[in-house]
Parts: sequence; C-alpha cells; structure tokens
Amino acid sequence: MIVGKVTGNVWATRKEDSLSGLKLMIVSRVDAFTNEEKESFIAVDQVGAGIGETVLVATGSSARMASSIKDSPVDATIVGIIDEMEVSDNQ
Amino acid sequence: MIVGKVTGNVWATRKEDSLSGLKLMIVSRVDAFTNEEKESFIAVDQVGAGIGETVLVATGSSARMASSIKDSPVDATIVGIIDEMEVSDNQ
Amino acid sequence: MIVGKVTGNVWATRKEDSLSGLKLMIVSRVDAFTNEEKESFIAVDQVGAGIGETVLVATGSSARMASSIKDSPVDATIVGIIDEMEVSDNQ
Amino acid sequence: MIVGKVTGNVWATRKEDSLSGLKLMIVSRVDAFTNEEKESFIAVDQVGAGIGETVLVATGSSARMASSIKDSPVDATIVGIIDEMEVSDNQ
Amino acid sequence: MIVGKVTGNVWATRKEDSLSGLKLMIVSRVDAFTNEEKESFIAVDQVGAGIGETVLVATGSSARMASSIKDSPVDATIVGIIDEMEVSDNQ
Repeated sequence: MIVGKVTGNVWATRKEDSLSGLKLMIVSRVDAFTNEEKESFIAVDQVGAGIGETVLVATGSSARMASSIKDSPVDATIVGIIDEMEVSDNQ
Repeated sequence: MIVGKVTGNVWATRKEDSLSGLKLMIVSRVDAFTNEEKESFIAVDQVGAGIGETVLVATGSSARMASSIKDSPVDATIVGIIDEMEVSDNQ
Repeated sequence: MIVGKVTGNVWATRKEDSLSGLKLMIVSRVDAFTNEEKESFIAVDQVGAGIGETVLVATGSSARMASSIKDSPVDATIVGIIDEMEVSDNQ
Repeated sequence: MIVGKVTGNVWATRKEDSLSGLKLMIVSRVDAFTNEEKESFIAVDQVGAGIGETVLVATGSSARMASSIKDSPVDATIVGIIDEMEVSDNQ
Repeated sequence: MIVGKVTGNVWATRKEDSLSGLKLMIVSRVDAFTNEEKESFIAVDQVGAGIGETVLVATGSSARMASSIKDSPVDATIVGIIDEMEVSDNQ
C-alpha cells in the first residue's frame, strides 16, 4: 500500500452509477521513508479521512476489496488513517 | 483514479470485436494537486465526455468494472466528468 | 490503453505451452499526445499488425480479455490498428 | 517480485476491518542488481520479518495470494526473507 | 511482456508455503528496442532459464497464468527464452 496525504476534494455530478455516494478525495503520495511528496491522484475514502490526514491507500484491484465497492471502477481506496510511522535507525 | 484532460479522438477500424462501438479518446494525465500535464494514453469513454473536459479515469482491471465492458480488453475508462476540484491550504 | 509502434519481431522456441502459436512483436510505446517514443516491450498480436504500424495495446489483466488468450501469461496485447488520431486545439 | 529492506513500522487504529491483525511495515524497494534503494511503501508481513532484513515482496493482485489475506485491500505483501542473492559475472 | 536478462539467483529459506520449490532468479529488465538495461527484480523461472540468457517475462496477474503457480504470490514469471529479436529499419 502507499502512504498518502489528503489534500482536497473532488466533485463529479455525471459519473458511473456505481460511483454514486462514494467520497472522492485528492491524495498526494508520500514516500514512506523520506516523506517526500510525489504525484497526486484521486482515491475513494472508506474510513472517514479528513483534509491533511496521513492515510494508507490500497491501489489496483486491491482497492476494490474494501467493503461495498467490489464492483465499482475504483483503483485507489483510502483504507486506513495512519497514527504513527516509526522509521528505524537500526538498519 | 487519475485526473485526465480529454485532448483528442482515435479511430481504429480493425480491432478486437469486443471493442466495437466503444468511443476511444486521447487523455492526458493531469496531476491532481499541481495540475501539471503528464503522459497521454487512450481511454474508453462511458460518460459522454467532450474534448477539453477534465475527467476521472479508472485504470487497470478496475477500468473493466464500468458498465458494458466487463469482458473487453480495456485498461483505462473515463468514469466521471469532474465539476470541481478543491485543494485545501489547511494542511 | 496505450499507443504503440510495431518495431520488430521476437522468436522464442522454448516457452510456456499456452504461448504456442501466438505472434510476439516488439512495440515501442508512443505518447498519444506528444508522439514521443518511450520504452519498448513485447506484445501478442491479435489483429494482424505489421512492422511500422501504429497500434492500440491493452495492458495488464485486460490484455487477457482478447479472444483466445484468456489463460495465457500475457500482459500486453495489440487489440487494434489505429487509422487516425486527432488531437484538438480546442482545449 | 521485488527486493525490499524493512525500515520501519506503521500503526493505523482506524482502518478497514479486513486489515485488523495484519502487521504493516515500511519497506524500501532495493534494486536486485545494483542494490540501489528506491521508493518506500507499506507492505503486510506474512513471514515474521524484522527491521533491517532483506525481503521478497509480492505486489498487485499477487499480494493477495498469500495465506489469510485473500479478501483484504492489500497490494504489497512480504512473502519471503532473502538469505542470499548471488549476482553472476558470467553474463 | 518485458524482455529481461537473467543475472543471478536468490535464496529464501523462510517463505510462503506456496513458493516452495519455485526457482527464483534476479532479472534485469532490458528495453526491447534500445537494449538498454533498466531496473532489476525477482522472477520465478518456469522454462529452465540460465544465467546470462535473454528471457520473456510476464508481469502482474498474468505471471500467475503460468502452469503450477496459479495460487502463488508471484508477480513476475519467466515464460520463454528468447532466441532472436529482429528490430526493423522499415519504419
């Protein structure tokens, strides 16, 4: 999964029926080790994430394993809110 | 999903039978946060998108979840037309 | 899907049984908007493409949706021959 | 699969139910030949990997083939601990 | 599929049960047109490839279509040994 930072909201009135009711958010990918921000994309939120939060995002077909979106055209889903990341020096 | 800008049309007379009747469009990927244009690819349109519109594109196997293309060799589908994107400063 | 230019042929005598009889071609990815050539890979041809032709390539699991290769280890398939691409200035 | 180095831990209290009980680790991708470190991501550990270990990571839908996570939104799984990598000069 | 050059071997004693008995090799991706070497990864060998050979590699879910690894966490499989690649000037 990738680490992301929620940076905004997206609205689309005209869309595939199976996307109705899903919350779409702008997420900037963050490197899990260096914390560097990378490209941004759109993810469906399944855990009530808010702007500015650091989240766990499942991508590809795995994004559809989250509850209630099994048959939706979704390739990125916010599946967790990250409380803490601990990078070790003991490497 | 990724944000795209519809930039053109594509015609292919000789093609897989299951692609018949599908509208193929050229889409340039746009970074959802910086708005920078990235690489361009071909997507099937399922929502009546027009040239110049900003759209939501599902990729990979998720592209086949859109209605009526479950068994087509399609890896990118326009599944929504974006009305508004709001990037927050509250980060 | 991606736009490709067919640039060569590949022969492999020793291979998975399910690849037998499939035509393998070298394809260079072309950016659909800028026309710039990108990385090259191997695709199975399902539409009778020839060297130098511009083609439509399905990738990932979608590549296996093309007829007769449902259970083959194929991740890129030529599914159409592009007749014309029209990039619009009206953006 | 890719080679990775385990560099940290991640905690997420609020998450998809199907992720409960899974151990999430920060993994830095390592080039299998040059040993160069690349981008970092989050993987589910299925083999008891520790910080600093070099591991084998399955990605995409293949990450869900590991035991007990078939229906979880997981796109990267640590499926082995690498004992030794031997790069040959005989090329 | 991608073209690769087999550059080494990998050993992992502790691993997912379904990986037992599979031969893991280090493969460097090679651009099919320019012959340039790219990133390296780990692939399962299904055709008896040796160090230094140029091979055809299936990636993603397609890697699991090869015989006997349908339910293994494998995302890259060597599915053929390339005898010859012919790049055409007639473009």
